[in-house]
Amino acid sequence: MNTTKKDKGILLVVSGPSGAGKGTICAAIRKIFPKLNYSISMTTRAPRKGEVEGTSYFFRTNEEFEKLIKEDAFLEYARVYDHYYGTPKKYALDKIENGESVLLEIDIQGAMQVKQRYPQGVFVYVVPPSLDVLSARIHGRGTDSEEVIQKRLAKITDELAMAHKYDYIIVNDVLEDAVHKVCSILEAESCKLSRNEGQVEVIFNQYINKEVGSK
Amino acid sequence: MNTTKKDKGILLVVSGPSGAGKGTICAAIRKIFPKLNYSISMTTRAPRKGEVEGTSYFFRTNEEFEKLIKEDAFLEYARVYDHYYGTPKKYALDKIENGESVLLEIDIQGAMQVKQRYPQGVFVYVVPPSLDVLSARIHGRGTDSEEVIQKRLAKITDELAMAHKYDYIIVNDVLEDAVHKVCSILEAESCKLSRNEGQVEVIFNQYINKEVGSK
Repeated sequence: MNTTKKDKGILLVVSGPSGAGKGTICAAIRKIFPKLNYSISMTTRAPRKGEVEGTSYFFRTNEEFEKLIKEDAFLEYARVYDHYYGTPKKYALDKIENGESVLLEIDIQGAMQVKQRYPQGVFVYVVPPSLDVLSARIHGRGTDSEEVIQKRLAKITDELAMAHKYDYIIVNDVLEDAVHKVCSILEAESCKLSRNEGQVEVIFNQYINKEVGSK
Repeated sequence: MNTTKKDKGILLVVSGPSGAGKGTICAAIRKIFPKLNYSISMTTRAPRKGEVEGTSYFFRTNEEFEKLIKEDAFLEYARVYDHYYGTPKKYALDKIENGESVLLEIDIQGAMQVKQRYPQGVFVYVVPPSLDVLSARIHGRGTDSEEVIQKRLAKITDELAMAHKYDYIIVNDVLEDAVHKVCSILEAESCKLSRNEGQVEVIFNQYINKEVGSK
């Protein structure tokens, strides 16, 4: 019977200002680590064309969402205009408890809530190399009105001031480099002593038993 | 004029029991990062055939070495039988102050001294996958007497107990995997917020100045 303490997985939180490129980075990470679990948001807004329940989002009614808030079922949540968006706690924490890691892509406000509720997470701040690049990226999407874009850009200095609350910072200049850095962070964190106490115990016992056995 | 605080380099300490494979790992790391500085030990023993001053070791007299001990010039040192061995402090700390990283391969006793004198270092513990593998590796070298080998193997449980004082642990089962993990640790550590305060300040100022300029 194996009574050794099982080492937990990692909650890898990739965050940053809108336009920093965190979505592109996370998509690349998921291709590199297809077995890495990906946290899916829950929302009360209606599915858009092509969106799939449980893949794009978990779609819930307002009543269902508010019931879950009362049950403290979210790592973070926010109300944006008329709709709720949140990160279900159970999915991520069950995987982590089972030794699996979970990738969570999220804005800065959300990441700060996650940090309060799960400070053991690994928090990565992705920053665009310059305001010009950021502006070009947001405009290039073509999904937001000029007013929304200006609001986003105005928020950037406040958002940069939050960087010091993170564990790691990545300047997303060359995408491949940024992706490689996130992979390195995930690999390095999995070698942390604090994340391998069960593993260390197994090795330690193996040596001690052998030593006793060889006497 | 650039008055921004310059970010320091990393002291990467690769340590572990004799036979763990830290020398092989460090040799591979140096090939991958040819610009990574490598800390060279100082000793009072005579050069062996083929050893080169400043490459294999810095060779010094007993008097010179003891003078340096009094000047607190070592990150660690030890007397083994009739000779001193030590890691000069100035070389490593000058490079680190200049933003460059330094690789230091060292035994566990030495690493613990380094940790006392430079706790900001990154301490990696390399452990062999089993006592059989460790024993086979030490015997395979063919450089030590059976008595020395048995002494080394007897030390192993004490040395394993020191693992929890390190930042990272790597089980050296497949060499390529172990080398890759050390590379990831070096890369991840260089993304730590605490190691990029100067860089963050530069980015922050750039955004603030642009914002002011665009008003």
